Amino acid sequence: MIYLLNDYSVLAAEEVLARIRENAGNNYGGYGLDEICDSAKEKLHSYLKDDGRCDIHFLVGGTQANQIMIAGMLRPYEGVIAVETGHINVHECGAIEATGHKVETIKPVNGKLTAADLEAFVKARDDEHMVQLGAVYISQATELGTVYTRKELAAISKVCRDNGLYLYVDGARLGVALVSDSCEGLKMSDLVELCDCFYIGATKNGGMLGEAMVIVNDDLKPHFRSLMKHQGGLLAKGWLIGLQYDVLFTDDLYFRLAEKAVRYAEKLKKGLQDLNIEFLIDSPTNQQFPIFDNGLIEHLEADYAFYIWEKGEKKSAVRMVTSFASREEDIDALLRDIDNYQKTR
Amino acid sequence: MIYLLNDYSVLAAEEVLARIRENAGNNYGGYGLDEICDSAKEKLHSYLKDDGRCDIHFLVGGTQANQIMIAGMLRPYEGVIAVETGHINVHECGAIEATGHKVETIKPVNGKLTAADLEAFVKARDDEHMVQLGAVYISQATELGTVYTRKELAAISKVCRDNGLYLYVDGARLGVALVSDSCEGLKMSDLVELCDCFYIGATKNGGMLGEAMVIVNDDLKPHFRSLMKHQGGLLAKGWLIGLQYDVLFTDDLYFRLAEKAVRYAEKLKKGLQDLNIEFLIDSPTNQQFPIFDNGLIEHLEADYAFYIWEKGEKKSAVRMVTSFASREEDIDALLRDIDNYQKTR
Amino acid sequence: MIYLLNDYSVLAAEEVLARIRENAGNNYGGYGLDEICDSAKEKLHSYLKDDGRCDIHFLVGGTQANQIMIAGMLRPYEGVIAVETGHINVHECGAIEATGHKVETIKPVNGKLTAADLEAFVKARDDEHMVQLGAVYISQATELGTVYTRKELAAISKVCRDNGLYLYVDGARLGVALVSDSCEGLKMSDLVELCDCFYIGATKNGGMLGEAMVIVNDDLKPHFRSLMKHQGGLLAKGWLIGLQYDVLFTDDLYFRLAEKAVRYAEKLKKGLQDLNIEFLIDSPTNQQFPIFDNGLIEHLEADYAFYIWEKGEKKSAVRMVTSFASREEDIDALLRDIDNYQKTR
Amino acid sequence: MIYLLNDYSVLAAEEVLARIRENAGNNYGGYGLDEICDSAKEKLHSYLKDDGRCDIHFLVGGTQANQIMIAGMLRPYEGVIAVETGHINVHECGAIEATGHKVETIKPVNGKLTAADLEAFVKARDDEHMVQLGAVYISQATELGTVYTRKELAAISKVCRDNGLYLYVDGARLGVALVSDSCEGLKMSDLVELCDCFYIGATKNGGMLGEAMVIVNDDLKPHFRSLMKHQGGLLAKGWLIGLQYDVLFTDDLYFRLAEKAVRYAEKLKKGLQDLNIEFLIDSPTNQQFPIFDNGLIEHLEADYAFYIWEKGEKKSAVRMVTSFASREEDIDALLRDIDNYQKTR
Repeated sequence: MIYLLNDYSVLAAEEVLARIRENAGNNYGGYGLDEICDSAKEKLHSYLKDDGRCDIHFLVGGTQANQIMIAGMLRPYEGVIAVETGHINVHECGAIEATGHKVETIKPVNGKLTAADLEAFVKARDDEHMVQLGAVYISQATELGTVYTRKELAAISKVCRDNGLYLYVDGARLGVALVSDSCEGLKMSDLVELCDCFYIGATKNGGMLGEAMVIVNDDLKPHFRSLMKHQGGLLAKGWLIGLQYDVLFTDDLYFRLAEKAVRYAEKLKKGLQDLNIEFLIDSPTNQQFPIFDNGLIEHLEADYAFYIWEKGEKKSAVRMVTSFASREEDIDALLRDIDNYQKTR
Repeated sequence: MIYLLNDYSVLAAEEVLARIRENAGNNYGGYGLDEICDSAKEKLHSYLKDDGRCDIHFLVGGTQANQIMIAGMLRPYEGVIAVETGHINVHECGAIEATGHKVETIKPVNGKLTAADLEAFVKARDDEHMVQLGAVYISQATELGTVYTRKELAAISKVCRDNGLYLYVDGARLGVALVSDSCEGLKMSDLVELCDCFYIGATKNGGMLGEAMVIVNDDLKPHFRSLMKHQGGLLAKGWLIGLQYDVLFTDDLYFRLAEKAVRYAEKLKKGLQDLNIEFLIDSPTNQQFPIFDNGLIEHLEADYAFYIWEKGEKKSAVRMVTSFASREEDIDALLRDIDNYQKTR
Repeated sequence: MIYLLNDYSVLAAEEVLARIRENAGNNYGGYGLDEICDSAKEKLHSYLKDDGRCDIHFLVGGTQANQIMIAGMLRPYEGVIAVETGHINVHECGAIEATGHKVETIKPVNGKLTAADLEAFVKARDDEHMVQLGAVYISQATELGTVYTRKELAAISKVCRDNGLYLYVDGARLGVALVSDSCEGLKMSDLVELCDCFYIGATKNGGMLGEAMVIVNDDLKPHFRSLMKHQGGLLAKGWLIGLQYDVLFTDDLYFRLAEKAVRYAEKLKKGLQDLNIEFLIDSPTNQQFPIFDNGLIEHLEADYAFYIWEKGEKKSAVRMVTSFASREEDIDALLRDIDNYQKTR
Repeated sequence: MIYLLNDYSVLAAEEVLARIRENAGNNYGGYGLDEICDSAKEKLHSYLKDDGRCDIHFLVGGTQANQIMIAGMLRPYEGVIAVETGHINVHECGAIEATGHKVETIKPVNGKLTAADLEAFVKARDDEHMVQLGAVYISQATELGTVYTRKELAAISKVCRDNGLYLYVDGARLGVALVSDSCEGLKMSDLVELCDCFYIGATKNGGMLGEAMVIVNDDLKPHFRSLMKHQGGLLAKGWLIGLQYDVLFTDDLYFRLAEKAVRYAEKLKKGLQDLNIEFLIDSPTNQQFPIFDNGLIEHLEADYAFYIWEKGEKKSAVRMVTSFASREEDIDALLRDIDNYQKTR
């Protein structure tokens, strides 16, 4: 079975595993208070170009990271704005609401929130019986693989600041977004300038598990570790996550792994386009959404693992995901199989 | 620095690490739906002797496990009973209350809940303006290293069943409890008979991270995965936890590691007793609470990492913890140092 | 100033006030455990034709009633379905989310949920990372004044039962719905047959304050008073609410007051139609949504209190609400003023 | 049956009822935004001597008031300190925990929190895995009828300010406390100086229902109405509560009613003392806790309603409560009955 199901089916990059092996016998302080975490943070700061001014915390997973950070940003009566397709709105089983907060939604354009729609939404809110708006949540890359350019992000940031809203970026797939041509040169350090907080995901980009929360806004820094504990998110062997970031942010490994994933995705996309396959959306990152005949889908399911995204009567959009662990020969095989299938019909 | 600070400072048992290495390149299904988790559950069932009747779920950490399971047991207006020293009452930063539930407390005897005190507490509750009692939480071993015998557990279980309360056992340190002489032959399979749910901790007994929740009572089984996701507790690479249990429950490794920890603790205890050191409590497991002169504590802190449990003016109780990764020579060194310190005063 | 702003600007029906005066000096049991509440429940049962089988509880307000009942119906990971315009989704400041639950929304048709849309929505849900669906919320009458017929309600009820969802009806304006021709003979007793729980609102129909929750489904009955207390909703002088229901459900007063409100609304509607005014929606109850030129609105605001519902550049929809306390001469005055305004332009 | 059960069994003072009658036909703005609430606030400000600087909000009941105010004071990971007998800890069915916060408890002395115990408790807290302390809750008068003097309150206030804790006073029975000799001249305006927020209860002192929250600290003022709505606590006909305060704080009515209650209690206390009855605690307010033989209790229960507070084998402490609506002849009757009972044994 060839895996195009997701970007978290393989454990971790070889470099990460090697480093774990090296440190396996050592004793480290608990709950992320240790020298490896310190080292990892130092390396992250050099990429953030923030002179150590941001707070960095290592969390286990994305839903937990979103839940904790959003609960930390909001007052009890406040809600968070997301696009309708936002991960927190659809795929977290109500984890945000579990902390007492409403997710208010805006229709996405190309999977993204637009600054204009955000502004209109915020301006229209003027009833004290409605949820107060406290923060904006976006994902970079989005749930549909698209990415925000620096300009788009700056425009959203401006609307947030003009209206007293925190801006939070879910970076579960930040790596592939930043190496994509479509983000037009956006850098990790730009996020420090434009956002109040964001996380740099490792689970889907070479790490075994872990997400690094970066808190830029001083108001959000106090007692964040208490927030983590209070939501069951403080890992006993926290240094295990720190270690992964220490490796991933040495010699640009994080970005090299992301580039691999995007390169494989581009090969897949180009190959499918050559076979006249259409796409649900034009994604520049490691998630691709080709539209296949249902017969082809059935045929492929025997050998390939992927996800049916939008089921139709004759055709359906599927999601195929690449990662640092994808293999070129697997993509070649897939394209060949589709070509053969098309020829024999 | 010699570590007696806790039982989660070293990553994992060698056997666990070896198995991770073997599987590092493979693709597995996400969120705990994979063949390694299936295999691990099968092995656990053989220890539980339950004919596969319990549900088993793999969680990341103890606070999270407690938070999810307790939220799953209770109706909104119900509370959970624990001893005053219970982990959920003291050391989880309000994680239970975060899910909306009150922790009602009873004074412990030797770190433990007694069936008699529980019964009296439950009988005294008859006011509808007070929290309804829904469940009882105990830890095996307790936060003070003591253990419940089969008889004690059966008595508590009876009070729970007579009064419509769920019984939940926090097994963060279940291994050391079950290998301790003091539990008088209590087995993992006895918990299936006596409790509604409990977890078998790996983080503190040879695993890298992970706790296995065992749900015995059918009423608590439905949609537990939704509960996990809803609290941010469904790990993307869930097979990583399953794998650890698969190794730990092969050839009794889990118990052999626990025996090591207890053996080191006994050596430490016996050695300290020989030096006329008194103890805060008589613990038969891997946590020991000797009472040292504050001068001795200061002297030891240069070379040994441990935790000051109860600070006094002249003497203080400290906590010293052993684990599978402790070394006999370190304990010898500690005893020698204390002996020397005592002689030179 | 003539009030068409809402249906809760006047304290209570004269009969209610008279009865309060009579009982003002008496002592009654606290928290709704008293003989007046008992009497009121008996009267309600005779309208419900349920042989006393439903549980009835007296609550203070609508948002609180929704919050408590919905929290009582759901497991932590479950959400409640409502139309986008539903009161719980828009005008309760996140009170449902405050109890940890997501409100999932469906686009309304004529202000109402359709059984077909509900079924399609439920059938499409099959991902365990999404919120589990636990209950359906509708309002009778709706937030836009429209009403469900018995047939429509039965169809929704069937979808709910086929899919294991509780059906809850917010009856803040149940009176005007039941006396409206548009409900095609739906009776209070039909709700007992079709719903799992619903409330009969008094605040907006002759009462001073109070909503009577009717729990039909046995599964939802246990410990409801604890749920109320736990959400701060158990009124010390609960008999004050019981008393109001005791009066309102003597000699059909509740329905006679609702008929008054609807009669005034029909007069208003007919009068505006004669003046060629268009409406946002065709409402058969006491809320009317005429569309006025913004100039007319400005003109009317000097003498009439009403709510601007949807602001447009030239024209806006306003909400005008009648109640048992409305006066015919006020409606005549309004119609005359509008007629004059139109003639002089 | 003579009522000594509680201080909320009679509807309201005659003056309050008269004023309701006067305003019964008028239209007022919804949700507490009306001229009667404005007038009531003005009167309250004159008693608070705060130059209008405090925010005042009208809430329906005490549990709700506590729940909303405490949720408003705390960050998610913070808890509130109360004495073990505190209303929020015992008699609110977990309403504080429902908002996600732990109630941390200190043993009371004479029903009260002492500044020394509070300071020791706060100083001992230094573990980030424990709940962060955010606020202190006390009741004036306490649940046992005792009262804080100005000096005691000032000492608690100092500890709070030195340690960054908000101080909140539950004034469900503030009236009887302030008119009691034991408070040594404490005035309502002193609370403005010493506390961050407190409420002035009407339900138990002449009002029909309602509690007036006074927010002194500017940090706690923003969006309090949203907090109220979010917890289902914004009453549609809010002016009904405002009206009651407008009457109660005209010509000192609030204090005159409290004085009546205390005078009746003193008569009861003195009379019982003359009969050699002992008391559980020496209460200077309207709650008295005499200790009766169980035989006497059984005898009295036929004619008098009161509450058994602490059941013993031979003797039990009962709670007898007076209010503005108590009658001297009833107390005379009770004393006579007890005297006769004692003589005939």
